[in-house]
Amino acid sequence: MTQSLAPDDCHLGLLTDVYELTMAAGYHVHGMAEQRATFELWVRRLPECRNYLVAAGLEQAAHYLQHLSFSPEQIDFLRGHPTFRDVPENWLERLASFRFDGDLWAIPEGTVVFAGEPLLRVTGPLMTVQIVETYLITTMTMQTLVASKSARVVTAARGRPIIDFGSRRAHGPQAGLLAARASYIGGCTGTSNMEAGRLLGITALGTQAHSWIMAFGNEIEAFRKFGQVFPQASTLLIDTFDTVQGARNAIASGAPMQAVRLDSGDLAVLSQQVRRVLDEAGRRDVQIVASGDLNEHKIANLLAVGSPIDIFGVGTELVTSRDDPSLNTVYKLVEQETPQGAVGRFKLSRDKKTYPYAKQVWRQCAPDGTFVKDVIGRATESLPGEPMLIPVMEAGQLVGPLTTLDDSRARCLAQLERLPKELLSLDRALPYSVQVSDYLEGELRRLISSPT
Amino acid sequence: MTQSLAPDDCHLGLLTDVYELTMAAGYHVHGMAEQRATFELWVRRLPECRNYLVAAGLEQAAHYLQHLSFSPEQIDFLRGHPTFRDVPENWLERLASFRFDGDLWAIPEGTVVFAGEPLLRVTGPLMTVQIVETYLITTMTMQTLVASKSARVVTAARGRPIIDFGSRRAHGPQAGLLAARASYIGGCTGTSNMEAGRLLGITALGTQAHSWIMAFGNEIEAFRKFGQVFPQASTLLIDTFDTVQGARNAIASGAPMQAVRLDSGDLAVLSQQVRRVLDEAGRRDVQIVASGDLNEHKIANLLAVGSPIDIFGVGTELVTSRDDPSLNTVYKLVEQETPQGAVGRFKLSRDKKTYPYAKQVWRQCAPDGTFVKDVIGRATESLPGEPMLIPVMEAGQLVGPLTTLDDSRARCLAQLERLPKELLSLDRALPYSVQVSDYLEGELRRLISSPT
Repeated sequence: MTQSLAPDDCHLGLLTDVYELTMAAGYHVHGMAEQRATFELWVRRLPECRNYLVAAGLEQAAHYLQHLSFSPEQIDFLRGHPTFRDVPENWLERLASFRFDGDLWAIPEGTVVFAGEPLLRVTGPLMTVQIVETYLITTMTMQTLVASKSARVVTAARGRPIIDFGSRRAHGPQAGLLAARASYIGGCTGTSNMEAGRLLGITALGTQAHSWIMAFGNEIEAFRKFGQVFPQASTLLIDTFDTVQGARNAIASGAPMQAVRLDSGDLAVLSQQVRRVLDEAGRRDVQIVASGDLNEHKIANLLAVGSPIDIFGVGTELVTSRDDPSLNTVYKLVEQETPQGAVGRFKLSRDKKTYPYAKQVWRQCAPDGTFVKDVIGRATESLPGEPMLIPVMEAGQLVGPLTTLDDSRARCLAQLERLPKELLSLDRALPYSVQVSDYLEGELRRLISSPT
Repeated sequence: MTQSLAPDDCHLGLLTDVYELTMAAGYHVHGMAEQRATFELWVRRLPECRNYLVAAGLEQAAHYLQHLSFSPEQIDFLRGHPTFRDVPENWLERLASFRFDGDLWAIPEGTVVFAGEPLLRVTGPLMTVQIVETYLITTMTMQTLVASKSARVVTAARGRPIIDFGSRRAHGPQAGLLAARASYIGGCTGTSNMEAGRLLGITALGTQAHSWIMAFGNEIEAFRKFGQVFPQASTLLIDTFDTVQGARNAIASGAPMQAVRLDSGDLAVLSQQVRRVLDEAGRRDVQIVASGDLNEHKIANLLAVGSPIDIFGVGTELVTSRDDPSLNTVYKLVEQETPQGAVGRFKLSRDKKTYPYAKQVWRQCAPDGTFVKDVIGRATESLPGEPMLIPVMEAGQLVGPLTTLDDSRARCLAQLERLPKELLSLDRALPYSVQVSDYLEGELRRLISSPT
């Protein structure tokens, strides 16, 4: 079972760019719609502020391919759209029974990946594999973006749990779910999003907001009343009026308490002061949760000065990947069956060069398991290292169950251990070595000099 | 009729932060759930790179409030969740019939707004107005973010159309729809998203991608074949191999052509060269569309050097609001009915001060219509200027039809005309004057000195 993380399933056909459909119609008219073709999806270059990425989004990509169809209303809309007025009716009829019946290879979720490496390889009828471009790019980009950011934040926290607090800052309600999922793959421990808890099984956490305190007007009363409803030890929010006094009030309230939360002010100073108040009251057991516009750099700085913070809540910066909220993900035609046989396809636009043919990526490791370099080659090559793309769908069907979310998260954490240490730096490091096979370089030269 | 722009409607209850539900349960247990309370939603401060914001997202906010409910599966999940194990069963029973039955006041979509101004004012039973916090923030933030960015990009283009090309870079498929909608409110002319065309009536545009050219291997053939399927004049993509040669090939193909598109390289240089090729071929009628990581600054620079570009496609930068992908939106308790009467609520956290009481914003204008200043006062005050918040829902029902999307877009364009000119600068300008009424300042002082 795959999950869409859209609020409900629907006819996904028109959730695509107009030009995917004009091209689909064009291939149909020219008898090319059934020609087998391969597209690959990859991130063209790493953001300035990233040394690696964490692949995520495959489950939603596979879900989309399993459920993609066009509703009668959508087909009627196309029929009436000025762009499609000259397209033959039999194309629209074809859309009515359209299903994805191609093959999907992918790098599993939670894998550390780099620029240029195909995360997905989609093979099928040309028209089919063209239509799916937009949705696959958006789905893979969003989750890979957030999983990659999450891994950095988790690294900065050096073992302390990170909780995703970002649902309200995500780009819409669905993005909040996708961000909770991707954050978890990147190593977060929990989420504030209750529906992510239900749908994904991620630990969903939360206690009270400033409005709870404000509704009672009085902190001691507010804490006490909370404890009456939630007699298991809770986290109490202590910064509504004065953080240090808030800590004293939390103790005075007698409410069952496992942690206090600071959400504003100078967290380095306040966490020390609050720790002292707690310790002096004999509450060494009470943890300190910090939140408030945190990111990996702020967390690293807080820990560098010895701030006694046990858990971090991270929102905006995590779920929007604020230092770079996008990846330059592309989905390009790389190989095509023609009456003359398989032809490699490529593009030579300035700074946007692509290599021909369906590909595989081989990762080479040192004896201790550390990643040494990746080589991108033609899928039919046999190169040293471990092949990273594995089959996911065949003729439109899943070949087996996808990795569970917990396994994807575990994969990510294990892979980060095997990454050359300098790449874990929060600052820019020398790039990891990703090479293109001699065969592919040669084929690109050959094809440029004698285009088909 | 409101539209969710989620792929389908569903039980929205758990699309919220855990703490909204713990507090809801707490209010229920303490007999406070039915106390009437008012929350307001506003953006705490403008991003560094914004002089104003454009309010957007109200229709999806209202849709959510109309359709919010909890499914039996969601209630069962809460029943089994460790956080809620001590919560009485009658709270869960209450959720089963839960509906939003409060009042909503709002600033209409397309209105130019500033930091501190309530975009929404929600009044109803305390438990009800608490639960809706997360969804309202995410919905209003995402669309206000993108509409505000859109207005800047549209301003930079000085009358040339901007098309939203960003679906693939939006943070998930739903975000793509939300971004298309918000971009349109901010002044964009069309979108590449076909489903946004169908659901929202925005002009949906697009022709072919590089893969179409690559599938034929040969530009002249690719253009000619496209023209056979789409005999109305199309836009031809000319940068797959060599942009200037691509322009010659477009002409040579004889395909019906209304524009050519450049998607890479130095657009200032290439647009001049392509214009010359077109003009020398007697095709002064053919327009030039430019795309490729554009934003308001790049567009302004291209036009400043006289680039003959007629239409811009903008994607990543627009739909992610890349220079700042988030707004510091908050939703705070400001007033509460208690057995002692209406009490103003506020918060004093460092840098996060809030003012008490349900509010209104009055906008004062010069005789020529130019906005002069806004004053935020208590809703019961009567201040000079035009009140900006209007009633939208009463007791859970819409009081009338919402503004149409076209009217919201027209409002935005009209309001930008009335903004002090320096605020339209793409760089930071002196802030617009937003004041708090003497009454509210006095009440805050009074309440601080004698907290209830």
